[in-house]
Amino acid sequence: MIKIFGHTNPDLDSIASAYAAEYLLSKKGIDAKAFRLGDYNKEVNYATNYFGITLDMPLIDRVEDNDEVMLVDHNEFTQSVGNIENAKIFMVIDHHKIDNFRTKEPLEYIAKPVGCNSTTIYEMLKEINAIDRKDVLAMLLSAIISDTLLLKSPTTTKKDIDVAEEIAGILGVNLNEYGYELLKAGADLSDVTEDELVRIDSKVFEPNGKKIEIAQINAVDMDSILSRQSKIEEAMNKVIAEKGLDAFLVAVTDVVNCNSEIIAIRK
Amino acid sequence: MIKIFGHTNPDLDSIASAYAAEYLLSKKGIDAKAFRLGDYNKEVNYATNYFGITLDMPLIDRVEDNDEVMLVDHNEFTQSVGNIENAKIFMVIDHHKIDNFRTKEPLEYIAKPVGCNSTTIYEMLKEINAIDRKDVLAMLLSAIISDTLLLKSPTTTKKDIDVAEEIAGILGVNLNEYGYELLKAGADLSDVTEDELVRIDSKVFEPNGKKIEIAQINAVDMDSILSRQSKIEEAMNKVIAEKGLDAFLVAVTDVVNCNSEIIAIRK
Repeated sequence: MIKIFGHTNPDLDSIASAYAAEYLLSKKGIDAKAFRLGDYNKEVNYATNYFGITLDMPLIDRVEDNDEVMLVDHNEFTQSVGNIENAKIFMVIDHHKIDNFRTKEPLEYIAKPVGCNSTTIYEMLKEINAIDRKDVLAMLLSAIISDTLLLKSPTTTKKDIDVAEEIAGILGVNLNEYGYELLKAGADLSDVTEDELVRIDSKVFEPNGKKIEIAQINAVDMDSILSRQSKIEEAMNKVIAEKGLDAFLVAVTDVVNCNSEIIAIRK
Repeated sequence: MIKIFGHTNPDLDSIASAYAAEYLLSKKGIDAKAFRLGDYNKEVNYATNYFGITLDMPLIDRVEDNDEVMLVDHNEFTQSVGNIENAKIFMVIDHHKIDNFRTKEPLEYIAKPVGCNSTTIYEMLKEINAIDRKDVLAMLLSAIISDTLLLKSPTTTKKDIDVAEEIAGILGVNLNEYGYELLKAGADLSDVTEDELVRIDSKVFEPNGKKIEIAQINAVDMDSILSRQSKIEEAMNKVIAEKGLDAFLVAVTDVVNCNSEIIAIRK
């Protein structure tokens, strides 16, 4: 059985990509199962509640030597499951730059420079006439809204827009209304502690041997986040010490007006 | 303009992949040009003479900073053009393991675990209804024959076989007769010096910081090659000294009977 998973601290795209890829492989007669490398976030919970979807994606943090795996929505080993170096990578579907990635054998690797990985997975499902499952389409649409901030982020491509509109049409969903509610649900941070805030969607990069973590906080009301800046910086310093980081950057993005503030701390 | 090229010491697949990818991009409205990182080999010359094709693929050994490039039939920087680290990689179509490869930005990367990269390019051309150029099809067919040793090598997949038979049908070519002549032309080594033999199709790998070169010699009459072993070893030792290799392996393959002998020398 091939284990499919997105990156650690999974966002909606990582969850939806793995969920839909399990269906993609099953349609090709390949035994595969979607996993997750972290808790479902608020956007995932909002989307699954809204569409009445029950996810069954077991949590894992490590694979065994020679396990067959499929990576979605990431390729860098630093963002992947434990022991990924010793797994057999069957396939990758991703939309990021390629780095910290290597295989021992040829594989299928599909990367497209689109705003959301779920856009590519939708196109691959469509190619084999497998856009018949509404739960899968709902997850993919929700992921595109999430990753592109309702088709407004600078990484949004024409393909993301076309696919989002096509799925919304199939499902009979009002893209703007649902999208705004989804982003708002994801951005409700009033009950989230600062320690949690800086860990919700964070990734470690290692350029030139430096260890740098970048976290993303999506907010509807950015001022309420920035009013917590000193406590956020305390939380960041804790993470720097724990993980031996050289630097920690937190990007706070106003998802409605599409601007960002960066909080950066060096070791 | 996007510069397209296969690996150094180009084999027929690297030449055909670049030639066909230029057509693929042109059909998508993208300005691109095929280049080569070494001389046309005997198989390339046999195929182009047979089909009356004139190739216009300039030789390059280096790209400028920020040049836009497309890699076909390879991904490892050690097998690519000079200064590849500083180019902007627009796209990759390949069929090898991924290693010594990284990008600064998202890109389109298509890898399939097939015996010949030209198989994948044919499928991509077919997807956009662009299998109308006989010269392109003839190059792709010839590459599949070359890379899979007439569909007999262990790396050959069902897709390679299906595509080769499909193209042969379109072109009205007898696959076995043409294939045998092509391989024989490529394997005529009587006028090739030992210094040339070990450089015809060789690649450098750097596993665990070791620098290892692997060369492939395809022969119809393997005994005639092995009778030259001591001179081949002299030539290998020269390359080891020149390039500071830790080891040099030469695989001599009998392309008709599909067995191989390995000559290996450590520093």
